[in-house]
Amino acid sequence: MKDTVIIEKVKMKKLHNAVLLTGLPGIGLIGQVVGRYLVEELRAEKVANIYSPHFPHQVFMTKKGGIRLIRNSLYLHKGKKRDVLILLGDIQAMSSVGQYEVAGVILDYCKSMNVTEVLTVGGYSTGKIAEERRVFGVATSDALRNRFKKLGVIFGEAKGSIVGAAGLLPALGKQKDLEGSCIMGETHGSYIDTASARQIVLLLSKYLDMKVDLKRLNKQAQESQKILKKVQDEVQKSMAAQFESANRNVSYIR
Amino acid sequence: MKDTVIIEKVKMKKLHNAVLLTGLPGIGLIGQVVGRYLVEELRAEKVANIYSPHFPHQVFMTKKGGIRLIRNSLYLHKGKKRDVLILLGDIQAMSSVGQYEVAGVILDYCKSMNVTEVLTVGGYSTGKIAEERRVFGVATSDALRNRFKKLGVIFGEAKGSIVGAAGLLPALGKQKDLEGSCIMGETHGSYIDTASARQIVLLLSKYLDMKVDLKRLNKQAQESQKILKKVQDEVQKSMAAQFESANRNVSYIR
Amino acid sequence: MKDTVIIEKVKMKKLHNAVLLTGLPGIGLIGQVVGRYLVEELRAEKVANIYSPHFPHQVFMTKKGGIRLIRNSLYLHKGKKRDVLILLGDIQAMSSVGQYEVAGVILDYCKSMNVTEVLTVGGYSTGKIAEERRVFGVATSDALRNRFKKLGVIFGEAKGSIVGAAGLLPALGKQKDLEGSCIMGETHGSYIDTASARQIVLLLSKYLDMKVDLKRLNKQAQESQKILKKVQDEVQKSMAAQFESANRNVSYIR
Amino acid sequence: MKDTVIIEKVKMKKLHNAVLLTGLPGIGLIGQVVGRYLVEELRAEKVANIYSPHFPHQVFMTKKGGIRLIRNSLYLHKGKKRDVLILLGDIQAMSSVGQYEVAGVILDYCKSMNVTEVLTVGGYSTGKIAEERRVFGVATSDALRNRFKKLGVIFGEAKGSIVGAAGLLPALGKQKDLEGSCIMGETHGSYIDTASARQIVLLLSKYLDMKVDLKRLNKQAQESQKILKKVQDEVQKSMAAQFESANRNVSYIR
Repeated sequence: MKDTVIIEKVKMKKLHNAVLLTGLPGIGLIGQVVGRYLVEELRAEKVANIYSPHFPHQVFMTKKGGIRLIRNSLYLHKGKKRDVLILLGDIQAMSSVGQYEVAGVILDYCKSMNVTEVLTVGGYSTGKIAEERRVFGVATSDALRNRFKKLGVIFGEAKGSIVGAAGLLPALGKQKDLEGSCIMGETHGSYIDTASARQIVLLLSKYLDMKVDLKRLNKQAQESQKILKKVQDEVQKSMAAQFESANRNVSYIR
Repeated sequence: MKDTVIIEKVKMKKLHNAVLLTGLPGIGLIGQVVGRYLVEELRAEKVANIYSPHFPHQVFMTKKGGIRLIRNSLYLHKGKKRDVLILLGDIQAMSSVGQYEVAGVILDYCKSMNVTEVLTVGGYSTGKIAEERRVFGVATSDALRNRFKKLGVIFGEAKGSIVGAAGLLPALGKQKDLEGSCIMGETHGSYIDTASARQIVLLLSKYLDMKVDLKRLNKQAQESQKILKKVQDEVQKSMAAQFESANRNVSYIR
Repeated sequence: MKDTVIIEKVKMKKLHNAVLLTGLPGIGLIGQVVGRYLVEELRAEKVANIYSPHFPHQVFMTKKGGIRLIRNSLYLHKGKKRDVLILLGDIQAMSSVGQYEVAGVILDYCKSMNVTEVLTVGGYSTGKIAEERRVFGVATSDALRNRFKKLGVIFGEAKGSIVGAAGLLPALGKQKDLEGSCIMGETHGSYIDTASARQIVLLLSKYLDMKVDLKRLNKQAQESQKILKKVQDEVQKSMAAQFESANRNVSYIR
Repeated sequence: MKDTVIIEKVKMKKLHNAVLLTGLPGIGLIGQVVGRYLVEELRAEKVANIYSPHFPHQVFMTKKGGIRLIRNSLYLHKGKKRDVLILLGDIQAMSSVGQYEVAGVILDYCKSMNVTEVLTVGGYSTGKIAEERRVFGVATSDALRNRFKKLGVIFGEAKGSIVGAAGLLPALGKQKDLEGSCIMGETHGSYIDTASARQIVLLLSKYLDMKVDLKRLNKQAQESQKILKKVQDEVQKSMAAQFESANRNVSYIR
């Protein structure tokens, strides 16, 4: 097996006006938390696995004593208005050449299934733990930006670059005439941020007109927010202590 | 030579219901010790060499002043019930792309020779030197797990991931409709562990119905166990000494 | 998308006796400053984008909330005597294999458009901030060297090697029967050097018979030179201070 | 240009019973010194250049203001009995995949020119500066070993592995039915060793029945040996001083 391959688990009929939605690991693990929650709540069906020599050469041992390759997977949610293919995965490809190859293979497959839009989810790191998490976006057309703006997504404020599949998929998708956007939850960057993931799930349920029960996630988000607040307090105390200690010993600093 | 190639030393007839058994370097060198011991005791015949640009660009100098490329090799044991191809090697491929390529080439060759099962051998590192080494397993089907459980192999306890050929070969083999398992000897992880290798050889001789004389290995295992015990005692003494010394000098620690 | 590709934005007619002029990031950012200034002043039209998996797997977020892949781009200036294709880019390919691939794709495209000459711009690092920046050159033929010598370019003094596209493009171009040279502005090496870039723009406007308004660049160059002088003074003061301090505290040095 | 290529400078007629002799950089630079000396003394004619994206993406600036890609080159010596193709180069390929590709391309080309034997030259590092440098060898057949033994080459004493082209070329050549050997000059390993190179040139002139004037090399070797002796004395003095100093200050060691 020399290249990235998609192995279908289910023979799908072609979809109509479908969206590729990604939930891969990244900043604050927001994409992964969002993707997994949606797959679970929507009972999306796994339709394909993606294998690549650009993933690490490892296999996971399962609880019942099985093994499986590191992979990405596509899950199908047949929605009221639009079908949604959700991309989950253990990991992203490890090199730039690998990232381009995996993204290209996924986009070609999606296009062959009548996917017309790519919507990736990521985190936007601010180094702070905000009370109310904002949602930032970038998109490949004004029409898309307007649709998301109506739902409260902020455009033009996020700066810099997006590393990995969350940026590559919509950008390469544009070259294949797919609409594309990346929606980013505001997050500290150093912690798993369920509260930010919750904001994205809420947004996606509106944008894609999907009924998603938020109960479990609300609870997780509250707990996560409490823990993050504690972490923040501890960090501040410890920084204050360090500062005092540094001042006390200032004559010994070299 | 641009890709991984298999060069046959002997024109083999197709095998019947054969097993690919691996003995490559890895944790505790258990796979390598097991593989080499079996090849020697069973007088398995070398049937093919595997060369790859994904192995290091080095050649070994031989005792009589020859050279040979770094390679893997396949040895054939014509068993009573099943034929066994044993994979030995100096080294595993150095990158993920290389590991996938080498594993793919080996599996395609084995499938063409009527291999139906992949059985890899590795070590499972616990950081301790156990009195009685256990044998852990993972496998790609319930049927296989049951066959190994009857022989005392423990499933569902080993956790985490398997790096390299020991995991890739059975996992990729499954995609090619080969049965697959990885059998791991319990080991400390930092030492060559002949005692653990012995347990695996014993198991394999039963599983594959092969007569293997264990005399040499029993002796090596006893010596290895004695040495490991000594090492363990030394390490503990030295840690205790360090701890005491640290306490004595505590006022000077910076 | 598995390889480096050139996507045309504009259907160009074949050019006549055209020059490929590069303005990629490198020593002192001289190439990039020169390239961008020329594109702006000459209002060169963007005619093609170059995408490659050998660029980093990142996308940039734009001010209005869009995204774009990391890329290189070609801009066309229809000159009085010769057409000029100017190559700008965020970055150069990250590996040797990538550099060769990107350079090869660009050269093949240029040759198909009737480009006959490759002219790259770089910096030549001296570790000093010269009052009057010299311009050094290397070229693939005596004829070219003579043309540049008449304009004050110094040949045979720059020593060592040129890393990246500034060297590869003319050297690989020679294998494709393109004339080639690399023009290097003398520079410190650790700072963006607009003063040196100015010298190159002046030279190119003569060499390619282009009218380029130097006003903006003159101003930037003066400011840049003032800043560099200050930096130099600060560095010298701080080195002197360190030296004194080292002497005063010499008994404490360990 | 995506792959390793050989560009002929001269249209050669097919050779008869020719030898590929390598002079690439390696331990003690012995191969490179030997190769260059032979090319100069024998006035061998450059017949081909070898370019590869697996060499660094750099170009060298020449004295007269030209540029050239990093490359390897083949030089032809039409000998009395046998033709000799001498391989010189700035560098070896930078990765294992690159080394295999370059070696494969060179061997295929040589085979097409009727080369029947591969003879590489390297250094064998002992960490000592011997008075009389020995010459070690490895070879792919008994016949070859016997031919070299008659000339004083020592087989079966050099241990370990040979890294790079000096080992790959004869070992891969064997797969292509070429005879192969690697001749190694005994050397310290940390210095350029002209004295050891001299021994190899002497040997090769006998083995290949070539008249090589050793005057220049004899002189260089004597100077090099003197310098090495001085270096060795200095190193020993400085080690002794360090040792004494360490003993004097032993109470301060932490």
